[in-house]
Amino acid sequence: MNGYRELSQQLGDLMALEEVLGLLQWDQEIVMPAGAIESRGRQVATLSVLQQERWCAPRLGELLGLLQSDETLDDVENANVREALREHNKAAKLPSDLVRRWGERTVAGHEIWVQARKAKDFSQFAPVLQELIDLSRQKAAILAPDQPAYDVLIDDFEPGMTMARLDKVFEPLKAFLIPLLAQVRQRQSQPGLPDIGFLTHPVPATQQREVGEKLVRTMGFDFERGRLDTSVHPFCGGAGPSDVRITTRYNENAWCQSLTAMIHETGHALYEQGRNLALANQPVSRARSMGVHESQSLLWEKQVGQSADFWRPRYAALQQDYTFLQQVPFDDFVYGVNYVDLNNFIRVEADELTYPLHVILRYELERDLISGALAVADLPAAWNQKMQHYLGITPPDDALGCLQDVHWSAGLFGYFPCYTLGALYAAQLFQTAVARTPGLLGDVQAGNLQPLLAWLRANIHQLGSQYLTDELITRATGRPLDPHAFIAYAGRKYRSLLRL
Amino acid sequence: MNGYRELSQQLGDLMALEEVLGLLQWDQEIVMPAGAIESRGRQVATLSVLQQERWCAPRLGELLGLLQSDETLDDVENANVREALREHNKAAKLPSDLVRRWGERTVAGHEIWVQARKAKDFSQFAPVLQELIDLSRQKAAILAPDQPAYDVLIDDFEPGMTMARLDKVFEPLKAFLIPLLAQVRQRQSQPGLPDIGFLTHPVPATQQREVGEKLVRTMGFDFERGRLDTSVHPFCGGAGPSDVRITTRYNENAWCQSLTAMIHETGHALYEQGRNLALANQPVSRARSMGVHESQSLLWEKQVGQSADFWRPRYAALQQDYTFLQQVPFDDFVYGVNYVDLNNFIRVEADELTYPLHVILRYELERDLISGALAVADLPAAWNQKMQHYLGITPPDDALGCLQDVHWSAGLFGYFPCYTLGALYAAQLFQTAVARTPGLLGDVQAGNLQPLLAWLRANIHQLGSQYLTDELITRATGRPLDPHAFIAYAGRKYRSLLRL
Repeated sequence: MNGYRELSQQLGDLMALEEVLGLLQWDQEIVMPAGAIESRGRQVATLSVLQQERWCAPRLGELLGLLQSDETLDDVENANVREALREHNKAAKLPSDLVRRWGERTVAGHEIWVQARKAKDFSQFAPVLQELIDLSRQKAAILAPDQPAYDVLIDDFEPGMTMARLDKVFEPLKAFLIPLLAQVRQRQSQPGLPDIGFLTHPVPATQQREVGEKLVRTMGFDFERGRLDTSVHPFCGGAGPSDVRITTRYNENAWCQSLTAMIHETGHALYEQGRNLALANQPVSRARSMGVHESQSLLWEKQVGQSADFWRPRYAALQQDYTFLQQVPFDDFVYGVNYVDLNNFIRVEADELTYPLHVILRYELERDLISGALAVADLPAAWNQKMQHYLGITPPDDALGCLQDVHWSAGLFGYFPCYTLGALYAAQLFQTAVARTPGLLGDVQAGNLQPLLAWLRANIHQLGSQYLTDELITRATGRPLDPHAFIAYAGRKYRSLLRL
Repeated sequence: MNGYRELSQQLGDLMALEEVLGLLQWDQEIVMPAGAIESRGRQVATLSVLQQERWCAPRLGELLGLLQSDETLDDVENANVREALREHNKAAKLPSDLVRRWGERTVAGHEIWVQARKAKDFSQFAPVLQELIDLSRQKAAILAPDQPAYDVLIDDFEPGMTMARLDKVFEPLKAFLIPLLAQVRQRQSQPGLPDIGFLTHPVPATQQREVGEKLVRTMGFDFERGRLDTSVHPFCGGAGPSDVRITTRYNENAWCQSLTAMIHETGHALYEQGRNLALANQPVSRARSMGVHESQSLLWEKQVGQSADFWRPRYAALQQDYTFLQQVPFDDFVYGVNYVDLNNFIRVEADELTYPLHVILRYELERDLISGALAVADLPAAWNQKMQHYLGITPPDDALGCLQDVHWSAGLFGYFPCYTLGALYAAQLFQTAVARTPGLLGDVQAGNLQPLLAWLRANIHQLGSQYLTDELITRATGRPLDPHAFIAYAGRKYRSLLRL
């Protein structure tokens, strides 16, 4: 058999296993009976071991070795080999006892974290956090002994990203956001801003679902190849690009949350549904990175879904559905959906301006934990100090502070920056789409989102992992990652909203 | 590592794969978006190939060979080895090109059958049926060249069963049913039987679901380890004994159908939920056979769920839910739920008396197709002739005749007999449970089903595949398969119902 064909078959099996694991996870969250948790654990473990075995199979390595220098391959095929090689190398290099220990300690870490957070007691979590840091350093040292450990870890989520580049984009962002938030705080203490009481007007879940589903359809979500369900934490999952499943949750006293979550998850879903189906069972068709994935959800949620342009053609219909909005002027509505809450400690509840600082704080702390510059015991104090410095507030306890997120308990060091990279890419992409496509903004203003989706399909979704992130973003926007698109957008938007 | 422990681990992986395949199938029927059908096909194919590879892995064969003569194993362990060996041998003996060809032709066969049935044209289906018969003969010749092909095929569904034994139980059954049905026909042409109009009184699906769910709970279905959903064809599936998922369908003009289906599928589900959880990931805990599985669904559906004893303590409550039954005397109700429809051509809609003849007819035809005694071209005529002989009716076309069932299009030769074996086992088991357990029938009559479930748990469910079918049935009932329990029961019941 032709070597590339043999490789494609093996990778097809691996992608199918990944899809099945995605389905098992969706099932567990949405429909699985509670008593099946133990057997589900065994099923997931079996498939994960099979997946790991297949990724590091010697024959796969052999094929990848041969094909790496095969000049008859085209660009897409070369990219496919490159992406497969990345995963093969990781799988093949990591010794199985480290992988097993990692699995055990992250499961234990999660349990201990749940208890520690409940008890608001960081000292309970500290020892397992230390273990996970040590294991992460070991992992990084095996994968790339000549690189800083944190750079190796971030590669799992944002291939090619480094601390040096993160610092270069996060510093100007901090320099922009910290003083802007001080201005916001001052402005909010003065009279003359709109009343946001309408945000807590009660709306039954069934009505929220109806209104949200209409919007999800308008955005282009294909219900023939996806579903919308309810879960405790909204997510986008499923079993590959033909089976994309999004979820939301309904808080009857905060109708805007379900809507925001649906728009956000639909952003992720459009990326998945927009993958090149002809290559759907090959790594090259997969989403480029966590950061690029987040750019798609945030582009729709923030750049589009919280803009006046998006809502103006829809507001009358929304007022028909939610009659209490008939008393709310359009500008007040837009102000409300973009409300900046300066007294919030929790990342997942943060608004567009404070969110990046929550992320940068975590990035700086985890970077220093991995390098050893910050001792685990000193984490709570360092957290609180940065919160005060960046956001002007100090958490009353560690549950609202350094114990709030699940990530570290799962050993996910290097994941946090992707959230804000997503926000930055989103601003770059939306500005470019508008600037380069005559009529696109007019279409959005007229309620037609299809030209925007088409642009994203062509410039991001269909390309999958064909290009490295820098090349993808440069091809799409004319320049690599650059925080100034976000800074310009956010400055303009919030100065106007807050009448600064 | 200890050989038996190594075996258990490998078998645990295989059982987990089987469970995941079960989940994929459930998902496909119940929640999967339509557009995912192609990618789902790839996922199932990948897992099936992995499963096949693992079943015929040389190391598994080696372990099984060693353990087969290991005298330190206990009875359960020996049975586990025996069950695993059966599957390993089949997987290892069948050449992969035959397996692939089988997969291709059964998929094609299904498509062609759908078309042929639609067109009521057997000639469209005949060529692929011939192919599937040829492939089945090849398969049987490879697996056991010294045995009749049909005996080898039936082993997939009812291990240990043979044509010789089937003939021995089916002949007395025919000799009992054919004249009894003639009596029924005559009786039904006379006045004095109850009106069954209440069976078609409209009931909304939501109410049917409520009423059915109460009954399912009463029977002992554990919703912590299972679900009840809606599907086109009712089934019991899921992902192992901790995740048992049953379905039903709701016909608003035939409320009894959903109830019957729920009781039937709950019978299957109780078997699965009653497996020995300590061995849940080993072959020895699996249901003994298709026939024994069907015995559990039919015991609950027919022996129990269509008996006056079962309904008497429940009838007042049912009349509260379905007020139109307040006009229906209890005896008329029982007559109605057991109504014998002598003008029905369709097996899946058949009642307790005609059903076995539908099955015996198919058994005799497929047996003769496999042996060559019946040519494919002669199947429609042979079918119609037997229908006339056994049931006194002749189908107007092949869609209502030999094209009605999906089984042959999927190459499932040897499956049909299990339905009636189930009915026979069910009668034996219920009679023994009642005879050997003082108070059990009184409890059923008082509305308490737990002692019956406990008996089934101890005598069937918990034992899984530890004993071969004959030993299982003999241990439970004091004698091996014997049609006379069913004959006695059915004769008594229907003579009384029909006032013969």
